[in-house]
Amino acid sequence: MLIIGVDAGGTKTEAVLLREEGAVSFAYAGPSNPASVGLETACRNIGKAIEGLGTVKPDAVGLGIAGLVDERLAGSLKKCLGLEDAVFVEDVEAAHVSAFLFGDGVVGILGTGSSFLGVKGGVKVRLGGWGHLLGDEGGAYYLGREAVRRALREIEGLDSPSCFAEDVLKHYGVKNTGELLYVIYSSENPRGKIAEYAPRVFALAETCAEAQELLRRAAAHVAEYIAAALRALGPLPVALTGSVYLNNEASLRPLIEGALESLGHRVEIRGPAVRQSCAAALLAARAKGLLSKRLVEAAAATCRFK
Amino acid sequence: MLIIGVDAGGTKTEAVLLREEGAVSFAYAGPSNPASVGLETACRNIGKAIEGLGTVKPDAVGLGIAGLVDERLAGSLKKCLGLEDAVFVEDVEAAHVSAFLFGDGVVGILGTGSSFLGVKGGVKVRLGGWGHLLGDEGGAYYLGREAVRRALREIEGLDSPSCFAEDVLKHYGVKNTGELLYVIYSSENPRGKIAEYAPRVFALAETCAEAQELLRRAAAHVAEYIAAALRALGPLPVALTGSVYLNNEASLRPLIEGALESLGHRVEIRGPAVRQSCAAALLAARAKGLLSKRLVEAAAATCRFK
Repeated sequence: MLIIGVDAGGTKTEAVLLREEGAVSFAYAGPSNPASVGLETACRNIGKAIEGLGTVKPDAVGLGIAGLVDERLAGSLKKCLGLEDAVFVEDVEAAHVSAFLFGDGVVGILGTGSSFLGVKGGVKVRLGGWGHLLGDEGGAYYLGREAVRRALREIEGLDSPSCFAEDVLKHYGVKNTGELLYVIYSSENPRGKIAEYAPRVFALAETCAEAQELLRRAAAHVAEYIAAALRALGPLPVALTGSVYLNNEASLRPLIEGALESLGHRVEIRGPAVRQSCAAALLAARAKGLLSKRLVEAAAATCRFK
Repeated sequence: MLIIGVDAGGTKTEAVLLREEGAVSFAYAGPSNPASVGLETACRNIGKAIEGLGTVKPDAVGLGIAGLVDERLAGSLKKCLGLEDAVFVEDVEAAHVSAFLFGDGVVGILGTGSSFLGVKGGVKVRLGGWGHLLGDEGGAYYLGREAVRRALREIEGLDSPSCFAEDVLKHYGVKNTGELLYVIYSSENPRGKIAEYAPRVFALAETCAEAQELLRRAAAHVAEYIAAALRALGPLPVALTGSVYLNNEASLRPLIEGALESLGHRVEIRGPAVRQSCAAALLAARAKGLLSKRLVEAAAATCRFK
C-alpha cells in the first residue's frame, strides 16, 4: 500500500510517500497555499513536490491546506492535479493528527495566521482561524502588524520610543512613515510583507523590553484560545505547531505555559509527533478505509522532525 | 473665473462649480475612491459628476482623493479624465481647508478609515492614515472589525455574551462563524464588507453597554491622534469630518471631547466650515495662483452642509 501526503504551506510544499513500513521519501517544492500564492502556483508546486517522490501509483492522496473552507477550491485543485480521488483536509485537522495521532487533545497552529482545534471523544471544537483581517493572534502576521504599528505610533508621537521604530524603518529600507506605508500597501502581498517582520520581533526580544512585551501579549492570546478549548472539552493534552512556534519554541513555550497557568490551566505544551505531510497521508488513508494500527505506528517511527 | 472641485469619496462623488460669487451648482455620482473601486470606476464616476455641472471651461480643477500617495495614480486619472491640468490633493488636505479655510488647526477624517492633519504657521503634522491593515482607528472599518471580532470571541467562548453575537450573525445573514468568515473573505471587497457593519454599532449603543464601550474605545483612539498633534504644534482649534463623524456627531463629539480632556486637552470640536468638494476647488485655485479673499469668503458663504 502506497499513500501520498502533502503539506501545502505558505512558504513551502512537503510531500511524503508513506507505506506500512513507514515514510519512504520526502520531496519539496515552493509555496502552495492557494490563499496566498493563487491556484495556479499552488497547483504547480504541489505537482512538483509529488513528482519529486518518483513514479508511483498511490492508493490514496491526502492534502492539508490552510483554512480550507471552499469545496470549489478543492475541486479546482483535484482537476488541475489530475487527482480526482484526492482527500482534502484543513491544515488544522492535519496538525491535530500530527500532534495526537487520532487521539484526544488541543492543537494550535502558529504560522502566518493561527487556528486551534480541540477533539475529545469525537467532539470537535474549532477556535480562531479568523483570518488576517479579524484575528490570527500569535501568528507571524499578528507579530509583524503589532511591531509595525508600534513603530508608527513611536514615529508619530503616540508612544514613547522603543527598539521598534528604527529597526522597522531599517528592515523595510525606508526613511519615514509615508515610505513605509507605500512599501507595504503597494506590495503584491501586503499581508506577507507585514508578516515577514515577525522573525525580527524574536531577535529584538533578546535585548528589548517592548519586543518581550509583544511576545507576552501574543502568548496571552494563544493561551486564551487554548483555555477556551479546555473549558469547552475538559482537561486534555495541548500541542502547538506551525513555523512561528517551531522556530521559536524556546522563547514561546514558557510564555504560553505561563499565560495558561495564570488562566488556571497547568499544561505542558508538546510539539508535533509526526510531520504534517504524514498526518495528511494518514487522514487520506482513513478516508479510504486503509488506516491500520501498523500504518500509524510506522508513521510515528519514521515521520519525525529532523 | 470658474473652478471645479471634486470630492472623490468611497461612497459617492461630489463635484462643485465655484465662481467668485460662490458655489453655482453641485453634482453627484457613485463612488470614486480608486483604492476601493478601482481606477476605471473612479474615472467614470468623477467624469459623470463633472458632466453633471453642465458644459463649462474651468480655469482650474481640483480633486481630493483618500490617501493619495501615488504620482502614477494621479497621472492615470488625469489621462482618463482628459484633465491634464487638474490638481490632485490628498483628502486630508481638502478636509483641513474645509475646516479652517487655510487657517491653523487640527483636522481628522473619520470615514472608512481615519487620518489627521495639523497645520500651524506653515508647519504640517500628518498622523494616522495607516490603512486598514495597520490602523484607521475610529473609522467605519475599525468599528466593524472590532464588532465582528467581539461577536467571534463571544461565539467561541473567549468573551461573555453581549449584544454583538446575535446581531452580527443576523446582519450578515449567517448561522455560525464558518459562514460568517466565508461571507466576509469571499466578498469582492472584504474591507467594505466589514466596514458596512459600523452603523449597527451606533444603533446598538442606544441600549447595549458593550457597543457603548466600543465607541468609547474608538473615541479614545481618535483623541490620542489629536493629542499627539496638539503636543507637536501647541494649542489649536480641532475639527472632525468624514461620514462616520458627520452621521453620528451627537454621540461621538462628547465621547471624543471627554477623551481629550482626560489627556489634558480641553477642546470644543467643530465640524467642517465648507464642503470638501469646495475645499478641493479652493486648493486648485491656490495651486493655479487664482486664490482670492473674495473666493474664500464666497465658498464659506455658499458651500455649507445642508
